[in-house]
Amino acid sequence: MKSQDSLVVLKEAMQSFAKERDWDQFHSPKNLSMALAGEAAELLDCFRWLTEAESSKLDANQFQAVEEELADVLLFTVRLADKLNIDLLSAAQAKIAKNGMNYPVEKVKGSSKKYTEYK
Amino acid sequence: MKSQDSLVVLKEAMQSFAKERDWDQFHSPKNLSMALAGEAAELLDCFRWLTEAESSKLDANQFQAVEEELADVLLFTVRLADKLNIDLLSAAQAKIAKNGMNYPVEKVKGSSKKYTEYK
Amino acid sequence: MKSQDSLVVLKEAMQSFAKERDWDQFHSPKNLSMALAGEAAELLDCFRWLTEAESSKLDANQFQAVEEELADVLLFTVRLADKLNIDLLSAAQAKIAKNGMNYPVEKVKGSSKKYTEYK
Amino acid sequence: MKSQDSLVVLKEAMQSFAKERDWDQFHSPKNLSMALAGEAAELLDCFRWLTEAESSKLDANQFQAVEEELADVLLFTVRLADKLNIDLLSAAQAKIAKNGMNYPVEKVKGSSKKYTEYK
Repeated sequence: MKSQDSLVVLKEAMQSFAKERDWDQFHSPKNLSMALAGEAAELLDCFRWLTEAESSKLDANQFQAVEEELADVLLFTVRLADKLNIDLLSAAQAKIAKNGMNYPVEKVKGSSKKYTEYK
Repeated sequence: MKSQDSLVVLKEAMQSFAKERDWDQFHSPKNLSMALAGEAAELLDCFRWLTEAESSKLDANQFQAVEEELADVLLFTVRLADKLNIDLLSAAQAKIAKNGMNYPVEKVKGSSKKYTEYK
Repeated sequence: MKSQDSLVVLKEAMQSFAKERDWDQFHSPKNLSMALAGEAAELLDCFRWLTEAESSKLDANQFQAVEEELADVLLFTVRLADKLNIDLLSAAQAKIAKNGMNYPVEKVKGSSKKYTEYK
Repeated sequence: MKSQDSLVVLKEAMQSFAKERDWDQFHSPKNLSMALAGEAAELLDCFRWLTEAESSKLDANQFQAVEEELADVLLFTVRLADKLNIDLLSAAQAKIAKNGMNYPVEKVKGSSKKYTEYK
């Protein structure tokens, strides 16, 4: 059943949340992009002084902080997409396909160079 | 069928994408948090000089740019969650519940004040 | 006297601060870029639900928050530049000159379009 | 002479730049915070797939990119401060003093824990 898809469930939950609080008035795409970027940056704070190795082995407090920030990022992503009538699954699949063309396996295997450096 | 859920579909697509290119070595949680925040900030660029009203009425070029950046944000969110074994749907639902307690309807209706200002 | 220039004063203050705490070990350019972006995003939090007009008329609490976040941004900017031996004043003046060529007055006056749209 | 201080030189250069282009209308503090965070995030892009060690040994192309992004961050920092009549040097020095109290040498030496973990 379509409505049980994760992204649909979250979209509807966010709609209810905003409606109950009369917050639609604040949820312009511009404002939501700021909220999203703000939450994404809080993730940076979780990792900024950890080594890469440490970032894979979080303790319970660190893990909970990351989990909550990542949840906020997803919620604002879903909310912003909803406000602009963007189908997130289709958009994400189309972007993977585009990335696949920009980073062809035979050229980038094992390398992290940005694709503009290959052209 | 569980594996048709959007978030599962995207998780598996990102796993394949990285595996084909031997990119797992670059995908530490620390690095992924940087990629995620970088993509979220590119959304800001789409909106920075628009008014709130304009941000709801994007032209075709603007819309495509926003759609692609939002897709990138979702893809890195999914990828980072996968690397840390975070169940995004559960995490997001738990966060909505927590937000509901921090922003009780009767206190915040129609107001955008941060919840710390209510305490 | 050169050493009284603001950027030099702050560079030296940050050097002392890190040295006293033995924090140089954490201040790789990669980590500092995360700290800088994290602080810049905290500024977004100050403004995300304000209208543009409101953002020009902050109350005392809001003003203090913005002042502190902006200070953090400047401090990490100075610190990152120092670690990479970048002369911030020269770099900023060169960038203004470059921006001037990308956004010639006669083409962009009164318009906020990104310069790539003019080409 | 006060007007030769780096931060004053850059403030005045940014004022002229905006005035010539009639861009003051776009430079609300809200919009400038988005521009600043956007530029700070472009720095992340320079470093996201580099190791910490690599981030200290940039090649010429990488160095130029970092230098330009860092310049943009400084320019928008100066511009936002100007719009809100914030004295950046005073604000930064006050913040260093505050940070010094939050991170007393005897408690944090050699450790990167966030100060809230000490309390």
